Amino acid sequence: MIDDNERRFMDEAIMEARIGADEGGIPIGAVLVIDDKIVGRGHNQRVQRNSVILHAEMDCLESAGRLSSSEYRRATPYTTLSPCDMCSGAVLLYGIPCVVIGENQNFRGPEEYLRERGVTTVVLNHADCIEMMRQFIKENPSLWNEDIGG
Amino acid sequence: MIDDNERRFMDEAIMEARIGADEGGIPIGAVLVIDDKIVGRGHNQRVQRNSVILHAEMDCLESAGRLSSSEYRRATPYTTLSPCDMCSGAVLLYGIPCVVIGENQNFRGPEEYLRERGVTTVVLNHADCIEMMRQFIKENPSLWNEDIGG
Repeated sequence: MIDDNERRFMDEAIMEARIGADEGGIPIGAVLVIDDKIVGRGHNQRVQRNSVILHAEMDCLESAGRLSSSEYRRATPYTTLSPCDMCSGAVLLYGIPCVVIGENQNFRGPEEYLRERGVTTVVLNHADCIEMMRQFIKENPSLWNEDIGG
Repeated sequence: MIDDNERRFMDEAIMEARIGADEGGIPIGAVLVIDDKIVGRGHNQRVQRNSVILHAEMDCLESAGRLSSSEYRRATPYTTLSPCDMCSGAVLLYGIPCVVIGENQNFRGPEEYLRERGVTTVVLNHADCIEMMRQFIKENPSLWNEDIGG
């Protein structure tokens, strides 16, 4: 059961993913929410900026700027795809308590490790996220592998 | 016992840290080495670029550009300070097999977890690295805390 906030903010993350796709990039998007407001947004920039670190969650954290510890502790990233080791590590670094994940069917990062470290993970398995990634991976297997270090 | 390569490449990482310090930034530096050649270098950019993701290791990985999986699997980052959760996560994402760490006395990231995931960690506890960080933390405690999500 997806609640209204989860739906609303995941829709914004999906919008970011679609912007990325329109730019010719990998369709993964994220928004960062604090106190029910979006304070950062971003999408994967591997193709657009030849970046190896700007996954959607990283681009989103960077766009939110330098936040205080108490802000990070009220922050929730909404991301269209299960966060990889790097993005999960960024969540741990900043003590972010909860991550909302669009889907983990096409890729699953270290969600169990996040939970062991005290992070709540909410996995929506949203049909639009699943289909968007499935299609992209099918059509761009080598680019996808590059993005996940495969 | 530090071997010649470890000393040479760590000296380059320390040089990066000193460039960062000269810019008014946090003095942490890194270089990425493949087949005995430096292919990327960087330093913490929190102050200089208001970045929350450009830790030294991330700046260094980004500067190396989009590498192939087989290149990452021959790559060794040399970093002046024990990698945090985010930077350790980037190492895991790309399947980097070994990290050489200048020191872990002033800060220790998830080194045990890296080892559990199959990454070799070499900790030099190099006197210059320890002293550089000790001095910086003493003089800039709040900036330092911000950088490690404290």
